[in-house]
Amino acid sequence: MEQTLTVDALRDRVEGIFRHAGMNAIQAAALSRVITAGERDGCKSHGVYRIEGVLRTLKAGKVLGTAEPELDGGSDSAIVRVNARGGFSNPAFELGLPVLAARAKRLGLAALVVNDCTHFAALWPEVEAVTDHGLATMVMCPSYATVAPAGGKRPLLGTNPFAFGWPRTGRAPYVFDFATSVAARGEIELHRRAGKPLPKGWAIDAEGQPTTDPEAALAGAMLPFGGHKGSAIGTMIELLAGVMIGDLTSPEVLDFLGSTTLAPFHGELILALSPEKFTAGREGDPFARAELLFEAIQGQGARLPSQRRFAARAKAEAEGITLSDSEIAQLERFESLGLNAVA
Amino acid sequence: MEQTLTVDALRDRVEGIFRHAGMNAIQAAALSRVITAGERDGCKSHGVYRIEGVLRTLKAGKVLGTAEPELDGGSDSAIVRVNARGGFSNPAFELGLPVLAARAKRLGLAALVVNDCTHFAALWPEVEAVTDHGLATMVMCPSYATVAPAGGKRPLLGTNPFAFGWPRTGRAPYVFDFATSVAARGEIELHRRAGKPLPKGWAIDAEGQPTTDPEAALAGAMLPFGGHKGSAIGTMIELLAGVMIGDLTSPEVLDFLGSTTLAPFHGELILALSPEKFTAGREGDPFARAELLFEAIQGQGARLPSQRRFAARAKAEAEGITLSDSEIAQLERFESLGLNAVA
Repeated sequence: MEQTLTVDALRDRVEGIFRHAGMNAIQAAALSRVITAGERDGCKSHGVYRIEGVLRTLKAGKVLGTAEPELDGGSDSAIVRVNARGGFSNPAFELGLPVLAARAKRLGLAALVVNDCTHFAALWPEVEAVTDHGLATMVMCPSYATVAPAGGKRPLLGTNPFAFGWPRTGRAPYVFDFATSVAARGEIELHRRAGKPLPKGWAIDAEGQPTTDPEAALAGAMLPFGGHKGSAIGTMIELLAGVMIGDLTSPEVLDFLGSTTLAPFHGELILALSPEKFTAGREGDPFARAELLFEAIQGQGARLPSQRRFAARAKAEAEGITLSDSEIAQLERFESLGLNAVA
Repeated sequence: MEQTLTVDALRDRVEGIFRHAGMNAIQAAALSRVITAGERDGCKSHGVYRIEGVLRTLKAGKVLGTAEPELDGGSDSAIVRVNARGGFSNPAFELGLPVLAARAKRLGLAALVVNDCTHFAALWPEVEAVTDHGLATMVMCPSYATVAPAGGKRPLLGTNPFAFGWPRTGRAPYVFDFATSVAARGEIELHRRAGKPLPKGWAIDAEGQPTTDPEAALAGAMLPFGGHKGSAIGTMIELLAGVMIGDLTSPEVLDFLGSTTLAPFHGELILALSPEKFTAGREGDPFARAELLFEAIQGQGARLPSQRRFAARAKAEAEGITLSDSEIAQLERFESLGLNAVA
């Protein structure tokens, strides 16, 4: 039976699943928050669908569910570091965030580096947590090698998400968060499960030829968005959020895991910028000026990114989150069997 | 008659034109360097073709050819500012660069804000100047409202270039620099001059309908690259390199100039990141690891961005730069008539 839960009730259930699977309190809490937020915001590919991948990654021993992240604030620098110590990125990010925010407000801009983490979620939870401090932010991380560079034939880059946020007073921030591939890998997975063909231009097969078959795409490579431009941005993310922070690149992640069915292990880079500091001594209030830009975009019938997500959020907060029969059955399976529910 | 000049000889001629047009030494020197670099690198849309726009903007009184940029190093912050004081961005950038580089090496990352400047060139000269210091860099600026946001119908965003660089030891850096529109405005201009239709998907007409007519495109709007993703990046650039730094956004630039035939007046944002600082305490040399990534890209037959440009550079440095009859005639016209050569 389809079932409707409050946001809090779903979060408690997901947290219970993770605790039952042996995760410590900070890992389970941070993870249940982002997974519930995905489901709440109507992002099915980052919602309860992800629980299975988390459990599979735990069971494979590729993430440490009891990790305690460690902060290195390095107060003379604009770089704040958190070592996730083999746990998930989310509790590590939460540990570093207040230090990042304080540093960015003092220096004008600062970076938070998260190392040695498993990252499996969207980036907009991080983005929104930074904009909550009145800061603009850019967030990026590698993934695993599933995307061919433009003009290439084989997987090398990750789907490498690129996300950005700008704070808006008294309302949801301006946020974008997208894969630098044409589609997110989760979307291809969902097409495969639904037995639907992919739109053209998403992927190539193992011979480097265009394909609309999700199985062939998963055996071949996805394509970057926007041709050589998206490919270049994906490469930038390998360099900044892999090589530069001394963490794994997408091909190295794939070597490490030996599979694309486990959540990827790598690092994450978060830049935070203070509009107040940047605009100091100049005319005009940056927050008011940004609103004029947003009004002009919407005034010609274009959407702001994340509008659909914020609408889903408002609905879920008012009416609860409805899960399908099979989703509920899966939650119950995880609740009773723990790690034994996954291969 | 077609004519071949050395890189230095062309630069001297361009500098002479700018001096004759009343520009001071630092403005003329910085501008002639970037224009000659464009021609040298085979970027016709940023080469001697741009001289006319510079002269037109000077004559219209929209840029100050005698401006002396002013540095505000603000040593307790990660933000370095240069006010171009109504001159071109290039000498302002050159003034701020050493302070930016020192700051990024000390703090790990830093930003250079250039305000109140006219920017008409590519961004890769800035990128390469930062990578020469062993730093990674992101550079961006608005333009004027010529691009419709995805889903919109009217010009609002600029072509807003986004550029990135990673230093490579003993060879040209990894550099990309592209418009966040499908095409650069200069490319549409060149199609118009050549009487050639545009490729599909570049632009819409004044009614918001797709067009391949360069005139109709210039009267309508260009489209962002990569649909809503490129549109989001273009918007990010308006926010960070316009609103956040207290300088004009692309629609404000268009209001200020009243024309898209003059070089745009706005600000520019340059972020510099120190791979040494970011990678401190982690395993592996970031520069060596980056080379593995570049080899893997090229190993499957894909190109690195800017490869064609670096090849053109090597050829120009060895064999000189060949200009067409009409280009030479135009240089001669500028040399004899100065500002009277333009409307």
